Amino acid sequence: MSFNYINALLKKPTTRTPIWIMRQAGRYLPEYCTTRKQAGDFLSLCKNPELACEVTMQPIDRFDLDAAILFSDILTIPDAMGLGLYFSQGEGPRFKHPIQNLQDIEKLPNNLNNELGYVFDSVATIKKALNNRLPLIGFSGSPWTLATYMIEGGNSKTFSNAKKMLFNEPKMLHLLLDKLADSVIAYLSQQILSGANSVMIFDTWGGVLSKQNYLDFSLDYMSKIVKGVKAKHSNTPITLFSKNGGKHLNYIADTTCDCVGIDWTLELADAQQQVGNRVAIQGNLDPAILYASPAVIEIEVKKILSQFQGNTGHVFNLGHGIAPDVEPDNVKVLVDSVHNFSKDYR
Amino acid sequence: MSFNYINALLKKPTTRTPIWIMRQAGRYLPEYCTTRKQAGDFLSLCKNPELACEVTMQPIDRFDLDAAILFSDILTIPDAMGLGLYFSQGEGPRFKHPIQNLQDIEKLPNNLNNELGYVFDSVATIKKALNNRLPLIGFSGSPWTLATYMIEGGNSKTFSNAKKMLFNEPKMLHLLLDKLADSVIAYLSQQILSGANSVMIFDTWGGVLSKQNYLDFSLDYMSKIVKGVKAKHSNTPITLFSKNGGKHLNYIADTTCDCVGIDWTLELADAQQQVGNRVAIQGNLDPAILYASPAVIEIEVKKILSQFQGNTGHVFNLGHGIAPDVEPDNVKVLVDSVHNFSKDYR
Repeated sequence: MSFNYINALLKKPTTRTPIWIMRQAGRYLPEYCTTRKQAGDFLSLCKNPELACEVTMQPIDRFDLDAAILFSDILTIPDAMGLGLYFSQGEGPRFKHPIQNLQDIEKLPNNLNNELGYVFDSVATIKKALNNRLPLIGFSGSPWTLATYMIEGGNSKTFSNAKKMLFNEPKMLHLLLDKLADSVIAYLSQQILSGANSVMIFDTWGGVLSKQNYLDFSLDYMSKIVKGVKAKHSNTPITLFSKNGGKHLNYIADTTCDCVGIDWTLELADAQQQVGNRVAIQGNLDPAILYASPAVIEIEVKKILSQFQGNTGHVFNLGHGIAPDVEPDNVKVLVDSVHNFSKDYR
Repeated sequence: MSFNYINALLKKPTTRTPIWIMRQAGRYLPEYCTTRKQAGDFLSLCKNPELACEVTMQPIDRFDLDAAILFSDILTIPDAMGLGLYFSQGEGPRFKHPIQNLQDIEKLPNNLNNELGYVFDSVATIKKALNNRLPLIGFSGSPWTLATYMIEGGNSKTFSNAKKMLFNEPKMLHLLLDKLADSVIAYLSQQILSGANSVMIFDTWGGVLSKQNYLDFSLDYMSKIVKGVKAKHSNTPITLFSKNGGKHLNYIADTTCDCVGIDWTLELADAQQQVGNRVAIQGNLDPAILYASPAVIEIEVKKILSQFQGNTGHVFNLGHGIAPDVEPDNVKVLVDSVHNFSKDYR
């Protein structure tokens, strides 16, 4: 079979600009809220392959999207390592046992395939439900992003503990990042073996680093992952997305990934100037545009489509996950506009 | 008198690279916490000229800084407009009466000089206490940044209401921004008349906009302010700082401001490439480096000093406000390192 989404990642011809939406299975959909209630809480939903499959299918049943994405969380790896992931009301993800010293890092287990079995079960279950109708995206958090949560014990505004380790104990941090990179390689490879057609690495916190620290502590490990996954699965396209990393696209493309994600604060034309024809680009509508009227959504879609130079290599998406208070009808306007108008801009 | 800080802003010769620190009068100083307790709360401290002067002087009495900055808040203007600023525990600034419609905008008062008298009294009081020892920096929030708080009613992660207005009711937002720009011009002019030697505009949320929206809804109004203030006070240098605005420095320099602020995610060399010799640059140490050891702080200071090309036009600063849990001794290491090493890099 031939999917527009996969073809766009590989810069092969497509019949229209493909679109998927970060967090497309989420709280803006009433059917998602129903299933989540049934599961009990967010983490129980992630850990239940049948229900995870159910919510994965909900947006693709409702909208003409070009890909499904595994329903899961970026913090499954540290959870499987024994840090004890939980979600506290209003505070987001937390770990019961954050990383505090070298011993904590040294004792992290290497082989997580048993603990992460529920994720691979979800992938296989979704794959079966998709029945080759659409491609399936697998994903992981980046080592640096995982490390920030593991060291801080949860969300942070200043990343004071993670940066303290970066500046005062860089070797210790490198040890942690290297262990995480190995785990991510095994994790993504197993997702691919279970049926994922492409994989994406979310580097949510790479953008809080200076350029040199970004290259040394975030990108280097994503590069290791790209090479490690490609060594086993050379045909599976890989997307890297560093939030607020629009200045570093040239370096990101150097990893030999297939696609770079960008947000709306960078124009597509600027992104293309940085990376040339080396990689596909995913993005980059401001998610807030989904609060606007259908007429405004159409105008903004046209602006983005008109900026992209070329006939393929563009995967339409938001520049950030969709917000919980968006009207589902506006998502339909977005998806249909991208498909309807994309032919006019080639 | 001749101040290194003012000379650097105007690209005149200096005897060393000047440094001041965003939020240098703040919670990391035990003497600040004592005065704040005496005032009752943050807003009462801002509104008491004698105590505001006291905390303004604390960091310059302790460290060899090159400028004092008025102790105040960026949200004084909307408060003076009657929106009822207050600070709730853990949630930051809130407004009792957020902007909800056109009528709310139309009825905003124009002349705020009486309501803001306490700020000008603070400036005059600090000026007297400084006794020409150091220059004094006045400041304001940018119109777009003030508007986001006024429309959201406080902090926001998604700026959904402000962006809803931007996309669906752009004329309404322009009316609000224009009123705010006029108020900021009057506010900064009166700060200068009261004794401020330079002024700075903090555009905390300009970086959440796409390029075109940034230019239309944030920078255009800062440009109006620069021109409005310069028309009356042509010799007073003006610094503009858009957080996450490192991609737009070329446009920021076009406003004819004197200096642009940058954070640590952009390298000084990249910033200089964008703006050439047109403006001075303020920045850009990662505030998290103040968590590191004195030896690491010295290395990182040298890195930044070595990156800046030229003999003047650099004002050393952090790329963001100093964190409350920093050791004051490390601030002394920073300030002294900048002064000691700066001669070696010219």
